Amino acid sequence: MTDFSKTRALFTIPEGVIYLDGNSLGALPSAVPARVAHMIEAEWGGELIRGWNSAGWMVQPRRVGDRIARLIGAAPGTVVMGDTLSIKVYQALAAALSLNPGRRVILSDSGNFPSDLYMAQGLVRMLGDRATLEVVEPEQVEAAIDDSVAVLMLTEVDYRTGRMHDMKALTQKAHSAGALVVWDLAHSAGAVPVDLAGADADFAVGCTYKYLNGGPGAPAFIYVAPRYADIAPPALSGWMGHEAPFAFDLDYRPGGGIERMRIGTPPIIALAALDAALDAWEGVSMQDVRKASIALSELFIAEVEKRCRSLMLASPRDPQRRGSQVSFRHADGYAIMRALIARGVIGDFRAPDALRFGFTPLYIGDAEVRGAVDILADVLDNRLWDRPDYRQKELVT
Amino acid sequence: MTDFSKTRALFTIPEGVIYLDGNSLGALPSAVPARVAHMIEAEWGGELIRGWNSAGWMVQPRRVGDRIARLIGAAPGTVVMGDTLSIKVYQALAAALSLNPGRRVILSDSGNFPSDLYMAQGLVRMLGDRATLEVVEPEQVEAAIDDSVAVLMLTEVDYRTGRMHDMKALTQKAHSAGALVVWDLAHSAGAVPVDLAGADADFAVGCTYKYLNGGPGAPAFIYVAPRYADIAPPALSGWMGHEAPFAFDLDYRPGGGIERMRIGTPPIIALAALDAALDAWEGVSMQDVRKASIALSELFIAEVEKRCRSLMLASPRDPQRRGSQVSFRHADGYAIMRALIARGVIGDFRAPDALRFGFTPLYIGDAEVRGAVDILADVLDNRLWDRPDYRQKELVT
Repeated sequence: MTDFSKTRALFTIPEGVIYLDGNSLGALPSAVPARVAHMIEAEWGGELIRGWNSAGWMVQPRRVGDRIARLIGAAPGTVVMGDTLSIKVYQALAAALSLNPGRRVILSDSGNFPSDLYMAQGLVRMLGDRATLEVVEPEQVEAAIDDSVAVLMLTEVDYRTGRMHDMKALTQKAHSAGALVVWDLAHSAGAVPVDLAGADADFAVGCTYKYLNGGPGAPAFIYVAPRYADIAPPALSGWMGHEAPFAFDLDYRPGGGIERMRIGTPPIIALAALDAALDAWEGVSMQDVRKASIALSELFIAEVEKRCRSLMLASPRDPQRRGSQVSFRHADGYAIMRALIARGVIGDFRAPDALRFGFTPLYIGDAEVRGAVDILADVLDNRLWDRPDYRQKELVT
Repeated sequence: MTDFSKTRALFTIPEGVIYLDGNSLGALPSAVPARVAHMIEAEWGGELIRGWNSAGWMVQPRRVGDRIARLIGAAPGTVVMGDTLSIKVYQALAAALSLNPGRRVILSDSGNFPSDLYMAQGLVRMLGDRATLEVVEPEQVEAAIDDSVAVLMLTEVDYRTGRMHDMKALTQKAHSAGALVVWDLAHSAGAVPVDLAGADADFAVGCTYKYLNGGPGAPAFIYVAPRYADIAPPALSGWMGHEAPFAFDLDYRPGGGIERMRIGTPPIIALAALDAALDAWEGVSMQDVRKASIALSELFIAEVEKRCRSLMLASPRDPQRRGSQVSFRHADGYAIMRALIARGVIGDFRAPDALRFGFTPLYIGDAEVRGAVDILADVLDNRLWDRPDYRQKELVT
């Protein structure tokens, strides 16, 4: 059994804050500052250029990838770190399209994170008449999979509502129709048990600054199924993915396996932070996380529905169809969230009207959930949100 | 006058090390550890998700870009940070090609950094018959510019020899022929005075872990000439480049100006390190850096040629045609460099036979240059390099 009283001792949360936004930016793991300081002072400062060998910088993307692989049901050697999630989406999608050359349809849904759709649109513009993007409603994805689809590109857990696709069933359906699948695990990795190998996924990508607590803008990851790892053509063919980067050949030859999904020089400071953050996952069972996450979410929904009747549940009621977040709608959701944050309960807002709350059992328990609802009820009962300054949109909403 | 005794006090160099590899990875600016610790502990740990607004994370890519703009002759608002140099090359090249739709030739040279060529090759594969890459010898670039060329893509300073292209003349020639130019400033930014506006460059890209001392894998930058900033179509169309990222529209609409060259969530920890590193450039004149760099390089060449006669100069002899590095050839260059490093003189090696030495006046002076040649002469005179372990290649060479 995972001991969550032990994991929560591994995080630094400010006094007076109830943090229900780990689905957007994970809290600070207490191990990070010292590890980053060591990387900067001893490794960069002390080893200088030698650190690429002596401090293992060059193999960090793969080594950290292996630590994440365990959390998403992937075999060692199938995940590598680097870049941002948007870049990884582009890479995976371009490779998947190339592996299905007779078809041109990318199928996605309107619950996908917009940047995934934007990157696909950019790729389609580039490919001209060799690709097209079709976006359907999330509920219509299954029916829309037919033998015109080259690649099904989905985010498993909807960033707005937490609605969760059935990864295994949709992957199977796509494969039966001759399509490949790219799964975005942004709201899945570290949130729900993911079984990429068991679901027979072709490609997967994700970010590490949400449930994996890697820090703002932490490096992304990409997974390629072993059957494709040596044949997936890299569209973003950078030197770190070359078979022999330090031969400095003029022609690109992709490296073996997942290495070819590397592009440029890896972000070593950020990888040190992420590596330290992943320590909190040692010995943690994703099944236990899931159980605890459902218990927290169910408690939150029950309490909110009892005490905050002006809020409408926007997430699926069935916890099995939900990730690790819960959203409620309210026409004044933005101002309400500002008021909540001013009272120390940090969630976030997604246009047009969703208040989002993330549940991260590694550092959040029942007491925080109850405390958050107390404040939320007070904010609503006393209209504490009804202030002009709370309606003013900030740069990042 | 720049006071280099003051700038060198801003860096932490290990005792017993003479560091002549700032052209590959800059030394550690002493301000970095505290700044990064503050960003992690106070901003991430204390502000959590609020940091995107309260700590200014969202505007960091642009704010840091402006600090670099000053060093490369670019106007404020024309440079933005993010990703790796390879990604920025792809972005710039794809945009430049789109802006010259009647043509398909990308012209580059064999002295370009291989990753730039690799990224171009990936782009060409993607574009099918709409683009082709032609690579000529560096000396033949000028003659090869004709009215078939869509984009001239060059690295200003050759990573192997330091040979420097004439940015202004080649840009002018390219423009006369109706071509656009993408300049890679990896070995120029912080090394030599660059005048992007004066040279009328169209696009420029660069990394910040070399002369700008941002740390291993620090974020890259991209410059777009104001005349193209609002019309350059982003091929890598991520949400941070969207006109309204937090509207979460399903369709991509590029943001105004340089913002559209942003892609994914910015790497905030790495940007904090870079931002602190750039403090060392406050009040520094690139003209003064250039004068000091030439003096150091000339001293190094003169001393080496006097005392290390088995080494052959691989860099241009004319300092005006050289960046801020000097290379010498030797058949046993790799083992010699290993022996040098074991003695505390850190340069690097580039296949097949080049010993590279970088000169960074911000933290290197005459004494280091003379000391390095003393040790180099000793290594060569006494064949200290002639050991089997020094011939064994490491992962990163």
